[in-house]
Amino acid sequence: MDEIEVREFKKVKLKKPVMIEGLPGVGNVGKLVAEHIIHELNAEKILELYSWHFPPQVLVDNDGTVRLSKNELYACKSKKQDLLILTGDQQSVTNEGHYLIAETLLDIAQQHDVSRIYTLGGYGIGQLVEKQTVLGAANDAELVAEMKKYGVEFREEEPGGSIVGASGLLLGLGQLRGIPAVCLLGLTSGYLVDPKSAQAVLAVLCQVLNIELDMQALKDRAEEMEKVVERLREMEQAQVPRVREEELGYIR
Amino acid sequence: MDEIEVREFKKVKLKKPVMIEGLPGVGNVGKLVAEHIIHELNAEKILELYSWHFPPQVLVDNDGTVRLSKNELYACKSKKQDLLILTGDQQSVTNEGHYLIAETLLDIAQQHDVSRIYTLGGYGIGQLVEKQTVLGAANDAELVAEMKKYGVEFREEEPGGSIVGASGLLLGLGQLRGIPAVCLLGLTSGYLVDPKSAQAVLAVLCQVLNIELDMQALKDRAEEMEKVVERLREMEQAQVPRVREEELGYIR
Amino acid sequence: MDEIEVREFKKVKLKKPVMIEGLPGVGNVGKLVAEHIIHELNAEKILELYSWHFPPQVLVDNDGTVRLSKNELYACKSKKQDLLILTGDQQSVTNEGHYLIAETLLDIAQQHDVSRIYTLGGYGIGQLVEKQTVLGAANDAELVAEMKKYGVEFREEEPGGSIVGASGLLLGLGQLRGIPAVCLLGLTSGYLVDPKSAQAVLAVLCQVLNIELDMQALKDRAEEMEKVVERLREMEQAQVPRVREEELGYIR
Amino acid sequence: MDEIEVREFKKVKLKKPVMIEGLPGVGNVGKLVAEHIIHELNAEKILELYSWHFPPQVLVDNDGTVRLSKNELYACKSKKQDLLILTGDQQSVTNEGHYLIAETLLDIAQQHDVSRIYTLGGYGIGQLVEKQTVLGAANDAELVAEMKKYGVEFREEEPGGSIVGASGLLLGLGQLRGIPAVCLLGLTSGYLVDPKSAQAVLAVLCQVLNIELDMQALKDRAEEMEKVVERLREMEQAQVPRVREEELGYIR
Repeated sequence: MDEIEVREFKKVKLKKPVMIEGLPGVGNVGKLVAEHIIHELNAEKILELYSWHFPPQVLVDNDGTVRLSKNELYACKSKKQDLLILTGDQQSVTNEGHYLIAETLLDIAQQHDVSRIYTLGGYGIGQLVEKQTVLGAANDAELVAEMKKYGVEFREEEPGGSIVGASGLLLGLGQLRGIPAVCLLGLTSGYLVDPKSAQAVLAVLCQVLNIELDMQALKDRAEEMEKVVERLREMEQAQVPRVREEELGYIR
Repeated sequence: MDEIEVREFKKVKLKKPVMIEGLPGVGNVGKLVAEHIIHELNAEKILELYSWHFPPQVLVDNDGTVRLSKNELYACKSKKQDLLILTGDQQSVTNEGHYLIAETLLDIAQQHDVSRIYTLGGYGIGQLVEKQTVLGAANDAELVAEMKKYGVEFREEEPGGSIVGASGLLLGLGQLRGIPAVCLLGLTSGYLVDPKSAQAVLAVLCQVLNIELDMQALKDRAEEMEKVVERLREMEQAQVPRVREEELGYIR
Repeated sequence: MDEIEVREFKKVKLKKPVMIEGLPGVGNVGKLVAEHIIHELNAEKILELYSWHFPPQVLVDNDGTVRLSKNELYACKSKKQDLLILTGDQQSVTNEGHYLIAETLLDIAQQHDVSRIYTLGGYGIGQLVEKQTVLGAANDAELVAEMKKYGVEFREEEPGGSIVGASGLLLGLGQLRGIPAVCLLGLTSGYLVDPKSAQAVLAVLCQVLNIELDMQALKDRAEEMEKVVERLREMEQAQVPRVREEELGYIR
Repeated sequence: MDEIEVREFKKVKLKKPVMIEGLPGVGNVGKLVAEHIIHELNAEKILELYSWHFPPQVLVDNDGTVRLSKNELYACKSKKQDLLILTGDQQSVTNEGHYLIAETLLDIAQQHDVSRIYTLGGYGIGQLVEKQTVLGAANDAELVAEMKKYGVEFREEEPGGSIVGASGLLLGLGQLRGIPAVCLLGLTSGYLVDPKSAQAVLAVLCQVLNIELDMQALKDRAEEMEKVVERLREMEQAQVPRVREEELGYIR
């Protein structure tokens, strides 16, 4: 295995596809959206990316089998808009790895002649979200103007000065390569996996891409999550433990 | 010394050996089992592995001599089943090192035409174990089915989603190479070196490999440990200090 | 993108320029001075430096566009003294990166035949500064003597034994190459961005370089900051939270 | 500058020299001894070693000049025994760097045909030392026996299972190369620079090497330190702050 190893399953020819990135992160918002799109559009896995820069561990599935941490790229052809959708188990745990993996992903994007990249994530505000909101950032001023038309908010003081990880680097490194890229961040508490915030991000993305998707699965998960939140709220009245994001893997 | 340096002592020709990994980890379960097998079968050391990715220190033996941190591979021929047994002082302390060392170990496994790998470890549950149990994970669904026949348990929520270090990576990276591999984890408190949990893991392994081993040495250590636990329990009634795993090197 | 990638915008021919380094650091003193000089002298950006060793994130500007973390070098010609001014968003976050980036900057300095380097920073004393003071260090005893003439203080016990990051390494690595270099550190509390300390450092630097600069912009920022400090002082009477430097990005 | 850069000042021809290592560490014991020997024997600096693996900072001397962190090797010829003495400002701050630098030092040792290595350090026991004691470890059983004759103690449970850094690795990596090496550790509280412990280590070393050295300078420093300890003890009666080793650089 190389430092970054790309295993291609299938060659596909896409027409100026849009790439959508949804890796694990705050509220797992980006990953929820990416997985939802992959499932609804029945997208096909075309490659897997492994790296020394992912944590040195395997994940155990419910059937008792393991798999190495990886990122995955799915492809979906359609008359309206071909898509490449990136998701995965992990992001890099090293500084260098973040850059190297983002560069590899951009190489792949360019091989497919990607016309634009959307990176998805959550923006944690440290309290329950009252009004679902999607914040934006882009690597080009025209894209900012375009996104505003879809209700994406660009706030002076938010997203807090910086966007960390793949969602940020694909924009920054994409800029150096001249690939237009937008980051869409759903407001979220930051404490829990947030399918409701994912719904808000997906709604904007569908409008922008001019596609329609059944949202029922995300709605169902949002309702399930509401119950978890309700239970936590009740527990909170006794004591006030701040649940860390990592501890939430089990409540997905 | 190279980044990873393998020093071979002896060439051996084995017949489709099974590799058993027992490096230091939770409750030292894997290492206890590996050392017990090496001792009982009088296995022969065939190579040592050194690396920059081990801690920058030497270990001092009781006779005042030092040795560099290393992993060691032992071989044992028998009519029933040839074995390669891996143990050592340390695992990698860097992210990259974990991957590189596991890859090197798999290279060695393939040179010996290993037919299957068993990785051994402990699964810490944070409290005293009432019923000795061996949890499993495998890099192939058929292996899961096979292991169930030997009483290995596969639980939906355990081993907690991930297996860290060599015990996990040998399965995950082995999967990419098509080497069948199983991880056997003995339930343990996680606070103390646990020869009792090691006995449970060894019992399963002996059954699976269809070999017989005298367990007396492990039983004796388990009894010694019982006394330590008893003493700790008494101390706990005054105050409740949580003993960290690293601090237990002296009670082995 | 290479480990360190230098993107040159413009070739300039300078006459034995002096290089001034003002990267982010304690009180942001160095960066404030560098940015002020760039602005007042209308210096021209000649290159950008990107690196894996900067944090894996993009910065979001107020217009919603992002930019990758980078260092920037500006040039300014004048009859008295040509200048190269280095500033940027970040310093390395890895140990190795600090050395590699400093070496790259010295390569660039030598290409331009730099006659001397001034590195600028703040020296945090953990309490409000009563008398603005500029401490110095140099990579040559003659430079120490020269700087004393401009009121730079060299104290036995300060700056505390070591100077960390680019401001230190450009001196240390410059010494190995025979490039004369001075570090000027403005005394600062260490809690807040400190334009007042920046003014003190700039005053010394102007004298040394025998140039004149309008200081109004720094004075205005210092007055603004005074109001922030005043507000914090009032808040402190209720409780005493120690504001961490990183959290102050928003009050610039 | 390379990852590890050796700058040789002077070629010397030594006769089967003994190498003595005294880099910074617990109680600064090793460094105190090495510096004392260099001073008393008027040893001559023959090379400096720089590395990316040292902290990214310069040290400021009392005259206001800076110097890059480095290790230094001194040589001393004599009829009885030629010596190479290693000291320096820092040890590696990365895991890999520890190994690479120790390997480089062993290369240099072999170029000079070193007959034996003595590594020196302190062994912190967390309380004031009642009886000055020198603990030992060696990379060869015969050396252990030899050292016992000089009063060096080899205890089953101490030095606590491992020796970290250059003092350990020169033994461990030296073993792989067949270079005999001994580690001498002076018992010390671990809280303060400890010239008294350094005296004890030096006394053993002088006996072993059959050389005589004036110890007055170390005695004077030990007396100074006694006063500091006395003052700390008085302060302790009011409150009990545990002074960290790093903070003691100023009290040398």
